[in-house]
Amino acid sequence: MASKRKLKIGFIGGGHRGPGLLDLLLEMDDVVVTCVCDLYEDRAKDMVKKCTEKGKPEPKCYLDYLQLLDENVENNLDAVIAPTAWESHVRIACDVMECGLPVAFEVGGACSLDDCWNLVRVSEATGMQCMMLENCCYGRPEMAMLKLIKEGLFGEVVHCEGGYHHDLREEICCGEENRHYRLRNFKTRNGELYPTHELGPIAKWLGLNRGNRMISLTATASKARGLNVWAKEHKGADHPLATYNFNEGDVVTTVIKCANGETIVLTHDCSLYRPYSRGNVIQGTKGIYMEDKHSLSIQGMTPEKGGWDSETWVELDQLWDKIEHPLWKKFQEAGVKGGHGGMDFLVLRAFIEAIRDNKLVPIDVYDTASWMAITPLSEDSIAKGSAPVAIPDFTNGLWLQPDRPYDKGTYCLEEICKPGKL
Amino acid sequence: MASKRKLKIGFIGGGHRGPGLLDLLLEMDDVVVTCVCDLYEDRAKDMVKKCTEKGKPEPKCYLDYLQLLDENVENNLDAVIAPTAWESHVRIACDVMECGLPVAFEVGGACSLDDCWNLVRVSEATGMQCMMLENCCYGRPEMAMLKLIKEGLFGEVVHCEGGYHHDLREEICCGEENRHYRLRNFKTRNGELYPTHELGPIAKWLGLNRGNRMISLTATASKARGLNVWAKEHKGADHPLATYNFNEGDVVTTVIKCANGETIVLTHDCSLYRPYSRGNVIQGTKGIYMEDKHSLSIQGMTPEKGGWDSETWVELDQLWDKIEHPLWKKFQEAGVKGGHGGMDFLVLRAFIEAIRDNKLVPIDVYDTASWMAITPLSEDSIAKGSAPVAIPDFTNGLWLQPDRPYDKGTYCLEEICKPGKL
Repeated sequence: MASKRKLKIGFIGGGHRGPGLLDLLLEMDDVVVTCVCDLYEDRAKDMVKKCTEKGKPEPKCYLDYLQLLDENVENNLDAVIAPTAWESHVRIACDVMECGLPVAFEVGGACSLDDCWNLVRVSEATGMQCMMLENCCYGRPEMAMLKLIKEGLFGEVVHCEGGYHHDLREEICCGEENRHYRLRNFKTRNGELYPTHELGPIAKWLGLNRGNRMISLTATASKARGLNVWAKEHKGADHPLATYNFNEGDVVTTVIKCANGETIVLTHDCSLYRPYSRGNVIQGTKGIYMEDKHSLSIQGMTPEKGGWDSETWVELDQLWDKIEHPLWKKFQEAGVKGGHGGMDFLVLRAFIEAIRDNKLVPIDVYDTASWMAITPLSEDSIAKGSAPVAIPDFTNGLWLQPDRPYDKGTYCLEEICKPGKL
Repeated sequence: MASKRKLKIGFIGGGHRGPGLLDLLLEMDDVVVTCVCDLYEDRAKDMVKKCTEKGKPEPKCYLDYLQLLDENVENNLDAVIAPTAWESHVRIACDVMECGLPVAFEVGGACSLDDCWNLVRVSEATGMQCMMLENCCYGRPEMAMLKLIKEGLFGEVVHCEGGYHHDLREEICCGEENRHYRLRNFKTRNGELYPTHELGPIAKWLGLNRGNRMISLTATASKARGLNVWAKEHKGADHPLATYNFNEGDVVTTVIKCANGETIVLTHDCSLYRPYSRGNVIQGTKGIYMEDKHSLSIQGMTPEKGGWDSETWVELDQLWDKIEHPLWKKFQEAGVKGGHGGMDFLVLRAFIEAIRDNKLVPIDVYDTASWMAITPLSEDSIAKGSAPVAIPDFTNGLWLQPDRPYDKGTYCLEEICKPGKL
């Protein structure tokens, strides 16, 4: 790899998830960050400092990403990575692709269906790749479950669940101070605002956009109480957020139906006290996985059930040697690195190596668009009293070809086990 | 109690849940079973045998419940208990009430909304009480959670979940041999067929029909695969059920919205391999309960969370002395008896003592009708592609009075802790 020229990366977005991703890039020998950008000058300068402190070349520094593109697209960039606010992902990604560059951006939902179609149309028209950096697709248990599904251990999968169960009351209620976009979204919107941490892995389990697809959904929001209670306790009864009428319900439940008959239940749950979970459940004809129990129960693998209250769950920790995904075996041998237990590193490498080697990315523009579309579609459904809404086929029929060529990229979840990938 | 005359009970339905309930009745000194009935002669005779073997008077034996009513209503009956097939509950209950007798029947959903209204109208017109014997309302953890909710430990409750997660593949696929009604229901219907084990306790937690009510739902069904797979494995590939196109989806998800803004997610899941669970979840502004973890996490009660993956769950088994419901404390001191961990006994005593003492039953006709209505309404929603459907107010406005008098009966879940009830 050292013989190859370094991949020149532009990095847009120095808040929140940005610094962690930049750290990972700065540890990669085949990458050079040539320019950085943030709306806020302090954050942009922090990124420059981070680069030079690690002994890397000083990147050019911008407050306007269009200027970054304008001045660097000719000969200073191979790709752009944009961990920006949810609302800006699509706008930036389309501008990058229009410049003739591939782009990766952070997770988050779209604001409109039109945004999702834009992403697809611009990618198709320019031939530029667009990848959401959905780290949870590369999570250790998520990948183990993918392996078990492919091996048929669950029988035929008929139902999956996932949630973003994350007590973010402090982050949200301090959104003014910490310049976080979640606050304005929770004030004004009501929907499944953050679907991809759970939907990404589920999409891989169910082969979505590869012989299967999501066809419709309903969404239902609970009342909004959690943020008021938190603000009252931590900022005082007189603080505006203690009585603000937040639009976003504390718990938003979205139920998706797939073309092949599977159901998916997603839960958005970020404004109540609770321990963290992504709440994954997989149910097949012969087995069940439940993240909250950190356990599997597979017919035949576990003792057969007895009476009505029999318990036949087996903890994952007793099973890793049987269930570990080959990529994760290698990753552990090589030494797990990066945030969130290693999955941030894996998803970033997937993008970098695909672009470096001129291969196709594993989470493509159709995946990205269809996962992001759940957000505006859930808002539609809630606005219509939980009416079912159709989910568009962003592939325009390509999903009928399960083995279509663009699915063979580096770190494609079916391909990552081949030698020499790490 | 021995000084009081015995309550004369007619018992209709000797299959499945019938024998267990009859056993419990036969152990009660203040009850005499005067007549029994079943469509099948062998089952009817088994019930007679059961009575005489326990040294009780021989009950009159019928194959036709209308004949039972006709010949005994004058002076041989104080109430009727009917653990019959789902489809017959309402018909039998209305006929009993028309005869001027109170009635209790087993759990199960209704077949039509009209059935539910019939129940209410007949009960109101005759003044006769009608109670669903929803044993899970009296479950030990369910009652402990009711206590904690009333004490405010969860803060304001905003979301509840429950499911009937029960691998019934053998019972269903052997429905011809064992004369079980589930088989014909799974062949022909598609909906939340069995909502009350989870919805009953949730209704008590959320105060449904007492200052709150369910206003709308959506339902979504997965494909049906589990029964085919089971039948093929256990009865052979040539058996009709190995390829029968079952209507009932393996996993049916129903999302209910309440008048006070809470959401409820119900899951019907009886035709896949899996360990049993009722899948209860309670989420409030300050705490969460999850049955599948057999654990609670309450802000303040448990160590405060640390990072994104912190775990602050505490097992119920470490908490019983703090969380036990007073009724259950007494029940344990007196010696827990009866099936399903004691809750069958409690719910049956609740009915018997309410009728004996001329009090109002704790699960009344409005609760019964509204819980049973979820079944036909979920079928409606699924038939319309998961369209939202309105849930009627069976109380016609009585729910606006949280403290209305009829809620003060024996074993009313708020009343059961008073002395002398056991």
